[in-house]
Amino acid sequence: MGRTLVSAIIAAHSSQKAMEGEICQVKVDFAFANDITGAPAAESFREMGADRVFDRERCALLPDHFTPNKDIASAEQTKKGKEFAREQGMLYWEVGRVGIEHAFLPEKGYILPGDIVLGADSHTCTGGALGALSTGVGSTDLAAVWALGETWLKVPPTVRVDFRGKRPGWVTGKDMILSLIGRISVQGARYMALEFGGEGIESLPMDDRFTIANMAVEAGAKAGVFVPDEKTLEYARSRAAREFTPRYPDSDAAYARRETFDLDTMGPVAAMPHSPDNVKPVRECGSPEIDQVFIGACTNGRFRDIETAAKLMEGKKVAPHVRCIVIPASYEVYNAAMDKGYLRIFTEAGAVVCTPTCGPCLGGHMGILAAGERCVSTSNRNFVGRMGSPKSELILASPLTAAASAVTGRLTDPRDVMSEDFFKNLEGK
Amino acid sequence: MGRTLVSAIIAAHSSQKAMEGEICQVKVDFAFANDITGAPAAESFREMGADRVFDRERCALLPDHFTPNKDIASAEQTKKGKEFAREQGMLYWEVGRVGIEHAFLPEKGYILPGDIVLGADSHTCTGGALGALSTGVGSTDLAAVWALGETWLKVPPTVRVDFRGKRPGWVTGKDMILSLIGRISVQGARYMALEFGGEGIESLPMDDRFTIANMAVEAGAKAGVFVPDEKTLEYARSRAAREFTPRYPDSDAAYARRETFDLDTMGPVAAMPHSPDNVKPVRECGSPEIDQVFIGACTNGRFRDIETAAKLMEGKKVAPHVRCIVIPASYEVYNAAMDKGYLRIFTEAGAVVCTPTCGPCLGGHMGILAAGERCVSTSNRNFVGRMGSPKSELILASPLTAAASAVTGRLTDPRDVMSEDFFKNLEGK
Repeated sequence: MGRTLVSAIIAAHSSQKAMEGEICQVKVDFAFANDITGAPAAESFREMGADRVFDRERCALLPDHFTPNKDIASAEQTKKGKEFAREQGMLYWEVGRVGIEHAFLPEKGYILPGDIVLGADSHTCTGGALGALSTGVGSTDLAAVWALGETWLKVPPTVRVDFRGKRPGWVTGKDMILSLIGRISVQGARYMALEFGGEGIESLPMDDRFTIANMAVEAGAKAGVFVPDEKTLEYARSRAAREFTPRYPDSDAAYARRETFDLDTMGPVAAMPHSPDNVKPVRECGSPEIDQVFIGACTNGRFRDIETAAKLMEGKKVAPHVRCIVIPASYEVYNAAMDKGYLRIFTEAGAVVCTPTCGPCLGGHMGILAAGERCVSTSNRNFVGRMGSPKSELILASPLTAAASAVTGRLTDPRDVMSEDFFKNLEGK
Repeated sequence: MGRTLVSAIIAAHSSQKAMEGEICQVKVDFAFANDITGAPAAESFREMGADRVFDRERCALLPDHFTPNKDIASAEQTKKGKEFAREQGMLYWEVGRVGIEHAFLPEKGYILPGDIVLGADSHTCTGGALGALSTGVGSTDLAAVWALGETWLKVPPTVRVDFRGKRPGWVTGKDMILSLIGRISVQGARYMALEFGGEGIESLPMDDRFTIANMAVEAGAKAGVFVPDEKTLEYARSRAAREFTPRYPDSDAAYARRETFDLDTMGPVAAMPHSPDNVKPVRECGSPEIDQVFIGACTNGRFRDIETAAKLMEGKKVAPHVRCIVIPASYEVYNAAMDKGYLRIFTEAGAVVCTPTCGPCLGGHMGILAAGERCVSTSNRNFVGRMGSPKSELILASPLTAAASAVTGRLTDPRDVMSEDFFKNLEGK
């Protein structure tokens, strides 16, 4: 039996065979932390007696969670990380020149096909969209990687996920990954890898692939990797900060199991409170009234997300009592959306457009919920209290569903506010 | 001896003579609170046994300080205010459709020449730019006004401030008001009114007048009022939400004292830590290094502020280690600045552009300082700990000085980075 994609990547970074279950010592291509995890990683680094990071161009620190700093505590934390980065001469970008780590690093070509990437943040799995083994670690583990350029990884079993058929315009990457999590549960891929493929993926935009890889961890997976195709390589080549070698699974790879989805029959879905696997078709959720919509996060703050939401909202208004908060995930996205007139569509509709930040996703800032409030969010987790009060409710959905809900003031299937022509234009792009 | 402007306004709202020192019962034209003061005002309103606000079109509540909500506490506070506003049917605007109260309310024509306006926020004095007696009260006093439409005011003595001569392009409203506060101190007009006039005011844009009126309270004044002229009336007529009657001082008005400034010889000034009256010419401040620049607040977040800062930054970059945070004061400003390409200039320069909010001004969110950090800010107060850590330092200056400092990474006189031609184009507009 041949190798899965993850096993192939690990083997290429190790002198070991990297068969399933084996603990392998691997070289790491890139390692990063953020404004929350950077300071403790720096502290661990010093406690270990480490002197210099293994490679200044492969170690990075980015402020994105509570930035621009939301309070004194976050300001102190950010400052500690920044000082460490300056002292080490490693990669650091100041607010206004950065974005959410999982959007910004792929954009700048620091995460590439075939890479092993470790980040002190659970959504590091987002990089899997590029065919990289990208996964989250604690800040102590990260500190060791900064010091050594190596770590150990246990080769996980892989669940192969195939998408078949032709994707209708109302089906986004978010609907695809929520459908998977709804089927296999939040524990469905615990300590496993998800490997995405199938002809339904071919026409799927990179931004939707990032959304899918991003939520691999919500199925319990260590990583969610896409088999690289022409689209992947084109994206990576045009941005690469260094050389890279894409890896591929063998045609006879040994998968732990297979999951298959037909895109033709898929519709918009939502994860209802309080778990990402409490997934239902939007039309079967009872149209609950909402107080807030959040479009953004490392899950859905990329250009295509902003674009589809803007196109839906064009000429419409946010419902009077609803707050609609739009946060592009990076300044590349923010600027492109401004140049295309999309930000203007949002402000004309009465939405808030905010500087790139993780914002309300993790209950950070910029849209925290009070008791009794309900929000439709494009983010990735809807655990109790995730976006504020433990008495608030969070519904996860796609940017299209979120935008439709902002307009009606209730959880709404985008097909209920837009014509078939609208979705025709979104198909297969 | 005749009436001052403030005495004339009070007399028009009262059956009393309204001579200096007299306590007068007055009708109130407009009364508002924000997301911090609204909830306690609502509570007081109910405790008083009040049932309905005196006039739903003259009572308003606006979320602007910690919005979009920065944490659970602010979310709960905002929600209480919003529920009260909905229950009363009074004016309320949701985030994305509002701005900082002192920018938004004049824009929408709710504060007008000749008005008496009370707001549960100390910078309510900003409305004085329109020739209104606009001043801050506590939330309990505001609740009583919401209930009765009346209050009592003691007629304050007035300091008349005249600006003479021709304003050079590098002198902004901020330099003018800081120069006044530097001369008379933060106690210089305690429980008095400031009345602004003189031929140097004629060519002064409304936005600069708002800046001057805004900081009247930093001189200890109850109000800072501009004698209405054609510019005032044009601004008010094009926006008025209701009828209004401008008032004027008598030519023989009895002033407590007079202060006169020559604009020809004025230069950019800064209020150094830790008081708004610690004012010096920018070139005599020793060019301290800075960590952050903040352009915004009810003081300097208006269109002309954003425009002059953008024009200075065009084609330049924010210094590598500096955070530059630009927050337009309302969505009218935000949209106009986006349409003109100014927001794009900021993001191209590496600045953060954020949704309208008071933000870091009062240590709220969106740019809080850590210990040891220093910020050049266009806001109005630089007391110890105002923007974060009690060990941080805040320097108050104009948008031009702030933008110049963002580019150099040090407190910088705008004349040191721009040519004479640049300032020629800013003169007398």
